[in-house]
Amino acid sequence: MIDFAFQNPTKIYFGRDSLQNLSGEVRRYGNRVLLVYGGGSIKRIGLYDKVMEILRAENAHVWEISGVLPNPRLGLVKEGVKLCKENDVQLVLAVGGGSAIDTAKAIANGACYDGDPWDLFERKGENTSVLPLGTIVTLSAAGSEMSDSSVITRESDMCKRGRNTPFNYPKFSILNPEYTFTLPPFQTACGIVDIMAHMMERYFTRVENVELIDRMTEAALVTVINNAPVVMEKPDDYNARAEIMWAGALAHNNLLSTGRTGDWASHKLEHELSALYDIAHGAGLAIVFPAWMKYVLDKDGEKKLAQFARRVMHVEDDFGSDRETALEGIARLEGFYHSLGLTTTLHENSIGQEDITRMAERAIKLGGGSLGSFVKLGVSDAEAIYRLAL
Amino acid sequence: MIDFAFQNPTKIYFGRDSLQNLSGEVRRYGNRVLLVYGGGSIKRIGLYDKVMEILRAENAHVWEISGVLPNPRLGLVKEGVKLCKENDVQLVLAVGGGSAIDTAKAIANGACYDGDPWDLFERKGENTSVLPLGTIVTLSAAGSEMSDSSVITRESDMCKRGRNTPFNYPKFSILNPEYTFTLPPFQTACGIVDIMAHMMERYFTRVENVELIDRMTEAALVTVINNAPVVMEKPDDYNARAEIMWAGALAHNNLLSTGRTGDWASHKLEHELSALYDIAHGAGLAIVFPAWMKYVLDKDGEKKLAQFARRVMHVEDDFGSDRETALEGIARLEGFYHSLGLTTTLHENSIGQEDITRMAERAIKLGGGSLGSFVKLGVSDAEAIYRLAL
Repeated sequence: MIDFAFQNPTKIYFGRDSLQNLSGEVRRYGNRVLLVYGGGSIKRIGLYDKVMEILRAENAHVWEISGVLPNPRLGLVKEGVKLCKENDVQLVLAVGGGSAIDTAKAIANGACYDGDPWDLFERKGENTSVLPLGTIVTLSAAGSEMSDSSVITRESDMCKRGRNTPFNYPKFSILNPEYTFTLPPFQTACGIVDIMAHMMERYFTRVENVELIDRMTEAALVTVINNAPVVMEKPDDYNARAEIMWAGALAHNNLLSTGRTGDWASHKLEHELSALYDIAHGAGLAIVFPAWMKYVLDKDGEKKLAQFARRVMHVEDDFGSDRETALEGIARLEGFYHSLGLTTTLHENSIGQEDITRMAERAIKLGGGSLGSFVKLGVSDAEAIYRLAL
Repeated sequence: MIDFAFQNPTKIYFGRDSLQNLSGEVRRYGNRVLLVYGGGSIKRIGLYDKVMEILRAENAHVWEISGVLPNPRLGLVKEGVKLCKENDVQLVLAVGGGSAIDTAKAIANGACYDGDPWDLFERKGENTSVLPLGTIVTLSAAGSEMSDSSVITRESDMCKRGRNTPFNYPKFSILNPEYTFTLPPFQTACGIVDIMAHMMERYFTRVENVELIDRMTEAALVTVINNAPVVMEKPDDYNARAEIMWAGALAHNNLLSTGRTGDWASHKLEHELSALYDIAHGAGLAIVFPAWMKYVLDKDGEKKLAQFARRVMHVEDDFGSDRETALEGIARLEGFYHSLGLTTTLHENSIGQEDITRMAERAIKLGGGSLGSFVKLGVSDAEAIYRLAL
């Protein structure tokens, strides 16, 4: 275990009646509210009306930023910042998934910064305060509801940048599993893959003597795997949705990072896939992560991958060697992704090897010359991983 | 899973170099510091000198409350409150285990309340603010370093009262496993039992569909059980001490309570043992918890106890019935306590049945007519449990 600092101040309201807590939070932070959301889904499920009803009961003044898309853009952030500054907004309230929340985070920070909000993502400036931020979650995936990170894309050059700061922790997040009942199966599946990836990026570490967090991470992975078929089969199963929703928040709130360094190469390699082809993040991770595992297996990765295979994928301990055990674990993970209706190869997405070098070079360049820490990857390693994903 | 609210704002600094963060915290909260500690152990291990050196470097004004004993007393709390009020103390800093921390919590709250600090424990008054509180932990057991609770005893009638309030969360806690190297084996053992009890009180719940937190709790229990023999054998094993120390904080920070109700009957039944006989809290729990398990087994407790036996005590699943599996799990838990050098019966402590009725009546009365929620206990149930512990 390595030395660490850990703090997560976000207040979680979880459950069927969790939305009622919004009133108290508005009273606490102020009733000049900027609502940030995506498309029509929050209107379709009636959540928009319920939120507005609560805000009206608090005599709130409400401004809106809507139309947030996946890979949320700087343009909307700037619009939101302007609204906040012009109207003395007191609370930024995201309703949606990671994109709405990340947009709201960028707005809440940008509203307390004099220059271009993009400066903050390029580390050209720092805000010293932040507007209070709340979230109402409708998608279990990104874990942004309890995380210190926000990822925004600048449209002009499609440059995607993340920023981690304690200012990004929401003051409160409202998680009601019912809001995820009507998600399309593909989105549910992608969310499950993303949640597991957040856990696995932290799990695959070279830091030794991390038994507690290893085991807690395995516990969370097993829970997601057990509940995934239930929600795929029965999207309105409250209990299974609840397990996945709480796991999704804990996956990314940094508890599972304590005492260790994570890897995160698979996430970065996937970003190139999503950037170049129109592949959803979770769907891309289902392709990249198994390939990454196969590659690092032979780079002194056998022991940890075999532990993963045994404890998470329940591979019986009779495969003769860590390597065989690990390979069986990876195969079962691929089988699990298939069971969610996802693909695990580039070919299944009509993608060949033509862009592999380009993606590898870009990913490594963006990583500052290398990616990952479980195995430090250069361009040829990244190429090999994409090739294993063919 | 039941609806819940969860927030834990305490900042954790963990590891060999964690003490260095004290400087920044003093700069943040103020350098008029009240130090709260127990006896000589923090001086013996050189920690007192190190803390004073850091405080001196920050030009701190330091007042001291020392001599805190197990089951910490109201008298010292009052002395501390007086010091805080007279000297405009800005930071209350506990150095020690649960007793020093609980005393510091009571002082930090009492300093912001006009009346007798005992009022707060009797719910006769409420403070609306609290002095910033920091802790430096030297004993893994009570988990007070990351909890919202504080337990104080009034000397005049030996009345023991707990108070849970968000004001009790320390602003920061410094956890260096090295500070636990020189603990006597008995104290280490009692701490391990206490940590596991905090997990098990939360684990034994009637709330269904709590797979994530069940599995994370099992992960933490298994980790403590695996590392316990290491620290008993080799008290200065950093890695094993670190696993137990972090598990001890997470055991009681309410994460493992999310979505469920806990039981806590065993804790209350143990308090009577400690009150009447001179038994340490952890040593008493090693006696009471197995007896409680045996009793609730036949009150529809088979299923959860069998799950505990399989997943935590690694009982093979071939005992023919949940009941047999559960009994084997309880036997292995007793065996584990013995392996720590602890006893699991009253007789081994020269305690007979003479006070059983008295303890049972008192415990149930203090519980307001019943104890526990996994099984709701009355006086005859409590008596039966004490008898099973004979």
